[in-house]
Amino acid sequence: MLMLKKPQLLHAEVVAHTQVFKVEQLDLRFANGTEVRYERLLGSQDGAVLIIPMIDEQTALLVREYAAGVGDYQLMLPKGRIEKGEPPLDAANREMMEEIGYGASKLTHITTLSQAPSYQTHATHIILAEQLYPEKRQGDEPEPLEVVPWRLDNLPELFATGEFNEARSVAAIYMARDLALTARGQ
Amino acid sequence: MLMLKKPQLLHAEVVAHTQVFKVEQLDLRFANGTEVRYERLLGSQDGAVLIIPMIDEQTALLVREYAAGVGDYQLMLPKGRIEKGEPPLDAANREMMEEIGYGASKLTHITTLSQAPSYQTHATHIILAEQLYPEKRQGDEPEPLEVVPWRLDNLPELFATGEFNEARSVAAIYMARDLALTARGQ
Repeated sequence: MLMLKKPQLLHAEVVAHTQVFKVEQLDLRFANGTEVRYERLLGSQDGAVLIIPMIDEQTALLVREYAAGVGDYQLMLPKGRIEKGEPPLDAANREMMEEIGYGASKLTHITTLSQAPSYQTHATHIILAEQLYPEKRQGDEPEPLEVVPWRLDNLPELFATGEFNEARSVAAIYMARDLALTARGQ
Repeated sequence: MLMLKKPQLLHAEVVAHTQVFKVEQLDLRFANGTEVRYERLLGSQDGAVLIIPMIDEQTALLVREYAAGVGDYQLMLPKGRIEKGEPPLDAANREMMEEIGYGASKLTHITTLSQAPSYQTHATHIILAEQLYPEKRQGDEPEPLEVVPWRLDNLPELFATGEFNEARSVAAIYMARDLALTARGQ
């Protein structure tokens, strides 16, 4: 570990604030004296959840949702923002009910991922949901999402669709597959 | 496939533009008539590359780099922005030389990931780099990056460090492990 002395913060300032995004400019001095100006997106302090809902031991439920950033429908795992003060597992259960019409009796926090640690503060908690039961709640989706079951032993075909390429969803479904294999003693 | 008719774009407008970020506001009308206002980050048209540099058949080279977004050092795969007009494989080779001091004789595009398709246009090309040779070029890093070799058959220990949690890096190293297993006929 060569350089674990963190850079010194010289100045921080919010330079843009829209309805969704807040951009902070940072001036940093590294341990070797180099000064650099960065910008980062300030996310909500509470972060987001992304859920792997297992309808059986081998099958996850994906959603096909319109993704305004890329301007097309995409296959993804259900996800959403954590509301203020809401425990992540509760947020996961709520988002599942809103997006796919299921709750889960067993919710497990697997890990926490960052989207772009170089310029975002945003954290996403990855939640494995098992023992599902039907329960639908109304969310803020502009239209119902199509639910697409997919077996974890068939990930190459999922990637080959070209529709499933959100980095967090890809990372999470691999992790769920590893857990499913471990559970089966493989 | 229930609802592949894309929403109609009613209005688009750039509402913030900083040194690094450009925020576009979109008004969309979904097929069912629901109108929604979104914001998305406009990325560079050329996107980014993220590289899995294989120093041998089982060992990838990671970097430990200060990540200003989360304000801490992180373990990640080497990555960087594609320069205007630069082919992605050339960008991958250049970023490797700048960040870890190696070029690669064999570069393979594995897939293209999005970070947040719901509110970013940004695309990251995932490149497997093999047959490495030492070559150092000066990049724009404020300090030299520590290079950390990691065996692909030991991913659970990597995740357990708590330092390797960037979603794109996690997704990419899983894909590289799958490819390495396939190459060995497992």
